[in-house]
Amino acid sequence: MASIRRGRGAAREAGARDGGGPVVVLVRPQLGENIGAAARAMLNCGLTRLRLVAPRDDWPNRYAAAAASGADAVIEGAEVFATAAEAVADLARLFAATARPRDLAVPVVDAGEAARRLRAAAAAGEAAGVLFGPERSGLANDEVALADAILAFPVNPAFPSLNLAHAVLVLAYEWRLAGPAEAAPPRPPRPGEEAASRAELLNLFDHLEGELDAAGFLHPPEKRPAMVRNLRAMFQRAGLSAQEVRTLHGVVTALAGRPRRRG
Amino acid sequence: MASIRRGRGAAREAGARDGGGPVVVLVRPQLGENIGAAARAMLNCGLTRLRLVAPRDDWPNRYAAAAASGADAVIEGAEVFATAAEAVADLARLFAATARPRDLAVPVVDAGEAARRLRAAAAAGEAAGVLFGPERSGLANDEVALADAILAFPVNPAFPSLNLAHAVLVLAYEWRLAGPAEAAPPRPPRPGEEAASRAELLNLFDHLEGELDAAGFLHPPEKRPAMVRNLRAMFQRAGLSAQEVRTLHGVVTALAGRPRRRG
Repeated sequence: MASIRRGRGAAREAGARDGGGPVVVLVRPQLGENIGAAARAMLNCGLTRLRLVAPRDDWPNRYAAAAASGADAVIEGAEVFATAAEAVADLARLFAATARPRDLAVPVVDAGEAARRLRAAAAAGEAAGVLFGPERSGLANDEVALADAILAFPVNPAFPSLNLAHAVLVLAYEWRLAGPAEAAPPRPPRPGEEAASRAELLNLFDHLEGELDAAGFLHPPEKRPAMVRNLRAMFQRAGLSAQEVRTLHGVVTALAGRPRRRG
Repeated sequence: MASIRRGRGAAREAGARDGGGPVVVLVRPQLGENIGAAARAMLNCGLTRLRLVAPRDDWPNRYAAAAASGADAVIEGAEVFATAAEAVADLARLFAATARPRDLAVPVVDAGEAARRLRAAAAAGEAAGVLFGPERSGLANDEVALADAILAFPVNPAFPSLNLAHAVLVLAYEWRLAGPAEAAPPRPPRPGEEAASRAELLNLFDHLEGELDAAGFLHPPEKRPAMVRNLRAMFQRAGLSAQEVRTLHGVVTALAGRPRRRG
């Protein structure tokens, strides 16, 4: 499986591209039929940019092609990645679709609100996307924690499990309803104010967590994953710019580099 | 294939029933998978009343049961009719879902408006439903003419053909959105999740800035006020909880307290 990393230039171009809409990322999808049905639903609503993370079966996949029912351009243009983190590295705004409630400090929005935010991101030239988990298990907590917000569907609590392609359709449908964002164009970002990419954020997290490990803060080991998720969630909620991420690198370096106090 | 006719009394009872929602009528459906996927989408959104008009394959159908993924009550409760006219005879309000424009003097509404009218009908105790046509050809004009209004989906004109179950899902999703707002209660805050007070935030800022001053980071002095404002803005945007502020105190203490690296 090819791991494809795209540079910032490509991401900016993709974010600004007319009509492609947000990137739909299917994480470890199991059934080719669902990938194809998701592609069809995307193109019905004007979305064209599909990424797959570690699909269970071969890719390209004939069941996906059949279920796409003519949405060939979406299927043929799909990019394959090894991990969710790699698949979203160039995205400035990211939602994670989940059915189950999560014990994470990540804000929750519905599909309509997610679509409005995705339209605003597109209007601002920011690359954006939505993560969808595998059919049976959904996204892992670490994958949800990559996102700025959780996308939750207002389904029947007695029968909440949406088909994967159906979840993609609801988001795509809301995207289409949210219409051209030209109604209220957001202020263009000043230089240095562009939203940080996912890769820039992950790099900051690595830096911070490496120093905290060295300081013995992320301890005991069994609590480390939850502590890391909670820390990341705070910074993700802040909607950091690339310049702010650079500032925070400086903060971490300054704090970690000074001599131990005498006290 | 059984042709079942229900009297007006039954229809009134059905229309008034709690939660069953409008009747979904699939006319000459071809694929069992699509019937099952439609049933699943219905139940995800709280709809339970399915009718089939002359399904192409056997009924009950094992492909439908598999695709329903647990929406067994919808599949098992499905009623089968010989003609669309018979299937809708007891309904007081009826929409016909079509993709292609029709040269018929029937008003056209979108899914949101159809859902609001269906909710109003339910509140008035009127039995109501929606007709969906076969996968390839859609409804015949005579079938569309049974309806009070056409339900049209705002799809991509360059790729307008919705999967049958996807069309049912969009209508069912809008029905659910049009319902009482109890569907998606906001998660109550967990203990320790109360928003930090202004005093708690200022105390954190003092701690952080004191350590950064000691590390020589907030330098030169004439730039300090702007640097401090920018740092505070990031944390304020994150909407920190009181617990998160305590965690960040721990982060600053851990980073500032460790020995200088050898490098």
